[in-house]
Amino acid sequence: MFSSVKRFLIGRPLKSTELGDQRLNKRKALAILSSDALSSVAYGPEQVLLVLMTVSAVAFWYSIPIALGVLFLLLALILSYRQIIFAYPHGGGAYVVSKENLGVNPGLIAGGSLLVDYILTVAVSVSAGTDAITSAFPSLHGYNVIIASLLVVFITILNLRGITESASILAYPVYLFVLALFILIGVGLFHIVTGDVSPDLHAPIGTPVAGISLFLLLRAFASGSSALTGVEAISNAIPTFKDPAPNNAAKTLLSMGFLLALLFSGIVYLAYYYGISPRADETVVSQIAAETFGRNFMYYFIQGTTALILVLAANTGYSAFPLLAFNLAKDKYIARMFTIRGDRLGYSNGIITLGVTSIILIIIFKGQTEQLIPLYAVGVFIPFTLSQTGMLVKWIREKPKGWIVKLTINFVGALISFTVMMIFFLTKFGQVWPVLIFLPLIVFGFHRIKKHYDSVGEQLRLQNNEPAIPIEGNIIIVPVAGMTHVVENSLNYAKSLSADQIIAVYVAFERDDEKLFEAKWNKWQPDVRLVTLNSYYRSIIQPLTKFIDTVEHKASESNYRVTVLIPQFIPKKSWHNILHNQSSLLIRAYLLYRRNVIVATVPYHLKK
Amino acid sequence: MFSSVKRFLIGRPLKSTELGDQRLNKRKALAILSSDALSSVAYGPEQVLLVLMTVSAVAFWYSIPIALGVLFLLLALILSYRQIIFAYPHGGGAYVVSKENLGVNPGLIAGGSLLVDYILTVAVSVSAGTDAITSAFPSLHGYNVIIASLLVVFITILNLRGITESASILAYPVYLFVLALFILIGVGLFHIVTGDVSPDLHAPIGTPVAGISLFLLLRAFASGSSALTGVEAISNAIPTFKDPAPNNAAKTLLSMGFLLALLFSGIVYLAYYYGISPRADETVVSQIAAETFGRNFMYYFIQGTTALILVLAANTGYSAFPLLAFNLAKDKYIARMFTIRGDRLGYSNGIITLGVTSIILIIIFKGQTEQLIPLYAVGVFIPFTLSQTGMLVKWIREKPKGWIVKLTINFVGALISFTVMMIFFLTKFGQVWPVLIFLPLIVFGFHRIKKHYDSVGEQLRLQNNEPAIPIEGNIIIVPVAGMTHVVENSLNYAKSLSADQIIAVYVAFERDDEKLFEAKWNKWQPDVRLVTLNSYYRSIIQPLTKFIDTVEHKASESNYRVTVLIPQFIPKKSWHNILHNQSSLLIRAYLLYRRNVIVATVPYHLKK
Repeated sequence: MFSSVKRFLIGRPLKSTELGDQRLNKRKALAILSSDALSSVAYGPEQVLLVLMTVSAVAFWYSIPIALGVLFLLLALILSYRQIIFAYPHGGGAYVVSKENLGVNPGLIAGGSLLVDYILTVAVSVSAGTDAITSAFPSLHGYNVIIASLLVVFITILNLRGITESASILAYPVYLFVLALFILIGVGLFHIVTGDVSPDLHAPIGTPVAGISLFLLLRAFASGSSALTGVEAISNAIPTFKDPAPNNAAKTLLSMGFLLALLFSGIVYLAYYYGISPRADETVVSQIAAETFGRNFMYYFIQGTTALILVLAANTGYSAFPLLAFNLAKDKYIARMFTIRGDRLGYSNGIITLGVTSIILIIIFKGQTEQLIPLYAVGVFIPFTLSQTGMLVKWIREKPKGWIVKLTINFVGALISFTVMMIFFLTKFGQVWPVLIFLPLIVFGFHRIKKHYDSVGEQLRLQNNEPAIPIEGNIIIVPVAGMTHVVENSLNYAKSLSADQIIAVYVAFERDDEKLFEAKWNKWQPDVRLVTLNSYYRSIIQPLTKFIDTVEHKASESNYRVTVLIPQFIPKKSWHNILHNQSSLLIRAYLLYRRNVIVATVPYHLKK
Repeated sequence: MFSSVKRFLIGRPLKSTELGDQRLNKRKALAILSSDALSSVAYGPEQVLLVLMTVSAVAFWYSIPIALGVLFLLLALILSYRQIIFAYPHGGGAYVVSKENLGVNPGLIAGGSLLVDYILTVAVSVSAGTDAITSAFPSLHGYNVIIASLLVVFITILNLRGITESASILAYPVYLFVLALFILIGVGLFHIVTGDVSPDLHAPIGTPVAGISLFLLLRAFASGSSALTGVEAISNAIPTFKDPAPNNAAKTLLSMGFLLALLFSGIVYLAYYYGISPRADETVVSQIAAETFGRNFMYYFIQGTTALILVLAANTGYSAFPLLAFNLAKDKYIARMFTIRGDRLGYSNGIITLGVTSIILIIIFKGQTEQLIPLYAVGVFIPFTLSQTGMLVKWIREKPKGWIVKLTINFVGALISFTVMMIFFLTKFGQVWPVLIFLPLIVFGFHRIKKHYDSVGEQLRLQNNEPAIPIEGNIIIVPVAGMTHVVENSLNYAKSLSADQIIAVYVAFERDDEKLFEAKWNKWQPDVRLVTLNSYYRSIIQPLTKFIDTVEHKASESNYRVTVLIPQFIPKKSWHNILHNQSSLLIRAYLLYRRNVIVATVPYHLKK
């Protein structure tokens, strides 16, 4: 049942040898890897206005210089990442770059914050996509969390099916979104140029604003830079490009930067010129679209593609998270299960973990985008800073041809990223403080896990330990609950193993029962020694383990091994199991984890 | 951790020999066993008015003749049950009486409907108690379901601690409730007699009412008879009385009937005289109390004790359900786990099942009492009818001294119960139809379970089967994942068992890996045969089980047994387990349930 549902949702399993054909061409790569960055324009400009609004609507003109600052930041980041692509053609995630150039701990900080950040990518993008939907259909407003959660489930399933198939699905919405926004910006500018829009809706640039402060402007700038989240995606995913991978990746990165700059400037300008104020129940983009077209087909087209790209932007997280988790797991910093490819060759455990945790985040934050964004953005700029700094160190150390230029570019990148990160901590501390608690905890966890794996490896390695003590003999203990075929079957098996001693153990709840059982047993199995134990508290496990402990203690003195044989009958239908006491399961689990005995289950399969 | 929380909530375990001192004296028994019946007056009168209100407020005077009918019904039931007490001094639940006198199926119908009914007892009583609370504190109105669920959890814990301790807690609220209602009725009547209450609030008895019909009056009568739910509790619980149990039980039953009659009449009369209409957000009793005292101390005293007795009335379900489940399980109609006494000698599985299912009901019905009551009442009158009919048959068959009188009493009881049940089906079909679906399903389930237990018993019994085939030899298969101390440990153990053949199995994901492993193995363990299997789909279980199947098939031809030894290392701390693949658990579960092989786990305990 379970497996056929799985087949239907995920598709047939793929052989390991089918891995090759999952590479991306530039057109698909632009779609799959830049949806996160491009979709940020749906909430980035709004974040700037939200901050400025705390002073007054007059302050909205500041969004123009702030946008210029963000564009400069974008340029610096694109140039910096372009260098990373060529320097790390096998995928230069912040984790790899920082670890290699700055050391283990900076690498783990980058890795940890990215890991959390990809979860936030999914939560933020899907929440913002849901906002676009509920802006268009206000009656859905109360169902944000449910809609968002269902969307995450949907994307998770797509990703479990495999990356190429999702790419085909993804390419169209991303290009449609770009098209839709170009039309919106074009028509909007046309309206402005032809004078269809009143120029009195906004305060002119330079209007003095009472109560404005540098602090506030920095805060607005930091908020705006949340539109740049996702630009690192391409540099992490170089191995998924078709050859020549680095060249293709670099070209894709430039195209993405160009598109992002155009869309971001356009939206900020229209919002400013239209004099739009952020509202709780309608996004800024929705307001611009409604202003430009009215609520006609074009409006719904824009909202629809915005929702789609935002929802699918979450996909960037799904490409990046499992890959990063794989790298961390390969280095033994997180559980090994993240290195295993699933039926469809994706790292299913990473994909599922990402889906579950982002749904949890959405539920905790009730799908409120503006609450999630600061955490998200600060989590992005930490690894930005670390990887740029790592590149800096690399150039200084290696000094390749033209290293001064390269150094300068990465230096500017590092400096700006660091500045933005500090601005976040200074101006939005109330929202980003959890990073300061969780990040150290995560890094600490990484080290603990690594230590554990190392210690296990050390203990298991054949060369490094004393030779095993030879086994001199075997004692078999068979807990019995009655005189049945199940018990007979187990005893026959025990006898066939030529053990040195076989002991049957019976736990009696009442004295009379004990005597009766002993008498019957001696007639039935005179050659098997029976030990009866008394249980005053109606527990089987306690007296049994006590007895086994005694036997084990004696046995180990003369290097005997103790085996506990558990007779168990297996009903024909699995639902029958709930009708029978599962004592044997309990006994097994208890003994295996707490005692040094071998636990064997001897099944007796019922025929009807 | 778990066990210390359990200790704190439930108390220290009791020895089986401590069972004796859990008997009840009359005063405690009246409290513990009649809280269900007595508390019904908190919602019974309201149910009558709810039906009459559908015509008009003028029709409220009909509540007086309807109440007289209910009182007559009460008298008949009390007399009938008094006879059951003496005829079945070991506890004459409807299940036992019906099964013994009418046959298995009527017994199972009675048993099944009671089982469901006790769950409804808990759900209805707790929901009504929550209504009393939210009537007094209207701001809590939105939290009905949560409050009710928490109360169920609380009662469940009390019952897991054991019956005597809960009885002490129970006695006070029940007597306080009776006291509070006597004061309310007394003061109310005093107000009426002294003319403090306007006689114009109600229509005089006999006022003609447009639109009244026999159907409606029957419906109202049926609703009112919901106040009688719970009168059977005493006759089921005779063994928990102090000796002489039947006499004590009979006296307790009469006291309960007397109290119930007084309280019910009083509430109906006051509601009628005050001209009170049922309201969604305030109970009828709350309205009477507010009318009589205003919202002063006495009002809160009445609401408080009403809430308490209602909540604790659920306790009747907790005495009755586990006992009935025990009886059904003893007869093999439900799972055997209901026969096991827990740490505190109560039937914990029954108690926990009752708690969980009633919370589910509360959630499904959103804690709305009036939705639950019809189901509850019809489920009570089915076993009422069956047990009275059973007594009828018993008297006819046995013809003891004075059997004509006894016969007459039970005949009247049976007839009235049957009539009320039919009225329910005729007038409230829309609410009680689920009974007609679930009851047959439950009885069918009972038979299926019984059949399964009988068949298992038959197959396990030593006399009835062919002798076991002698075991000629052993083949041991050891799945290996590498060359480590864990594997070495398992191989040494396998060698010590003097098996006829030991086969190590390695599942390779890649061809190269396979060759390499084989070469290394032959150096390390030249005397152990290694079989390598290839897995194209990265699954270990599939190739492994296929191999084991082949071996098992061959082995069984010459009566060899196959044992699968699973090497497993056990980390020092249990949280470490999530860091390791749990393939061994999966392999074990899969093989044990599906294949005829012995599965043994050889633990290798890590030291750090």
